[in-house]
Amino acid sequence: MYSPLIDELMQAFRVLPGVGPKSAQRMAFHLLERDKEGATKLAQALTDAVEGVGRCDCCQTLTEQSLCRICANPRRDSSVVCVVENPSDIIIFEQSGAYQGFYFVLHGHLSPIDGIGPSDLGLDLLESRFSGGDIKEVVLATNSTVEGEATAHYISEIAKSHNILVSKLAQGVPLGGELEYLDGGTLAHAISSRTRVE
Amino acid sequence: MYSPLIDELMQAFRVLPGVGPKSAQRMAFHLLERDKEGATKLAQALTDAVEGVGRCDCCQTLTEQSLCRICANPRRDSSVVCVVENPSDIIIFEQSGAYQGFYFVLHGHLSPIDGIGPSDLGLDLLESRFSGGDIKEVVLATNSTVEGEATAHYISEIAKSHNILVSKLAQGVPLGGELEYLDGGTLAHAISSRTRVE
Repeated sequence: MYSPLIDELMQAFRVLPGVGPKSAQRMAFHLLERDKEGATKLAQALTDAVEGVGRCDCCQTLTEQSLCRICANPRRDSSVVCVVENPSDIIIFEQSGAYQGFYFVLHGHLSPIDGIGPSDLGLDLLESRFSGGDIKEVVLATNSTVEGEATAHYISEIAKSHNILVSKLAQGVPLGGELEYLDGGTLAHAISSRTRVE
Repeated sequence: MYSPLIDELMQAFRVLPGVGPKSAQRMAFHLLERDKEGATKLAQALTDAVEGVGRCDCCQTLTEQSLCRICANPRRDSSVVCVVENPSDIIIFEQSGAYQGFYFVLHGHLSPIDGIGPSDLGLDLLESRFSGGDIKEVVLATNSTVEGEATAHYISEIAKSHNILVSKLAQGVPLGGELEYLDGGTLAHAISSRTRVE
């Protein structure tokens, strides 16, 4: 329908999450009609990031240095490590301001059916950090899914074998949440784990 | 919060229409974690399109050739030209299958307050096509907005001065549309322009 270069650009936009044919068309025409400079900058930023960004040697998060900013910060609490599935999870923790320790990013979860085993998640690297002796506690913050829970269980076994305290995030009613919109599973958990009001 | 290259990539995604900070973060992490190849392809497609795509010499639509596919097609009806605001409008016409003439793309509408006058829309080029003598009818298909209607009126005056028939798209109830969801203005127009049932 369009000329080949425009068709290719629309196809290329489809790699982005949540972008269908209509959005891809809108993006392509928007850039070509109104923001060629922005398009050039985006192309450059993509190339730079693809070439420059790798994984932190210590926590596996995405960074262009060998150590990410958090792992390179000597004022963080080196006795705690929090295990998360995705680099973006770190942001939520940092925004909360309630955590001062280090992180470890799995980039997914154990999934035998997809051929994703412990070494694909870098669990050998995590275990070598456990062996280092600095870490006293590991906070498991994988997603609340079957695969996330299974991965957390697997890591807790490794941690226990190194005599490291294992904890996980509290589950229950979210702050500001209305009970009306809560699912039954969460409510059941919040009831059975109810805390005493002094 | 992130490393500089990732920050820059997120900022760069913000040039896309409808992409806010959260979507930009999701896009950046998706590509860096799961589809570096797609990111490279997108960067290449952007560069190619920015460099290669220009405007058709005849109708001003976006194309990398000097004449777009439609203008270069000798089997189209050269006696009719349809004036639209955006290149994407052409697609809707072509999909309808009900139009065989040529197009002219304004890339916007007259807007004195933004300093957009007739020459910015290429109306001198359109007038030179009117002078050519081939065109017998111009179909005005600018958007149904105040600026779109004003632009259509301006073009109709030029066309009339060249003794060219001027028409515009019929307005009324959309096919398959439910009256319940129709705005009052459209319904008022549909009533006053009601057609006789034979």
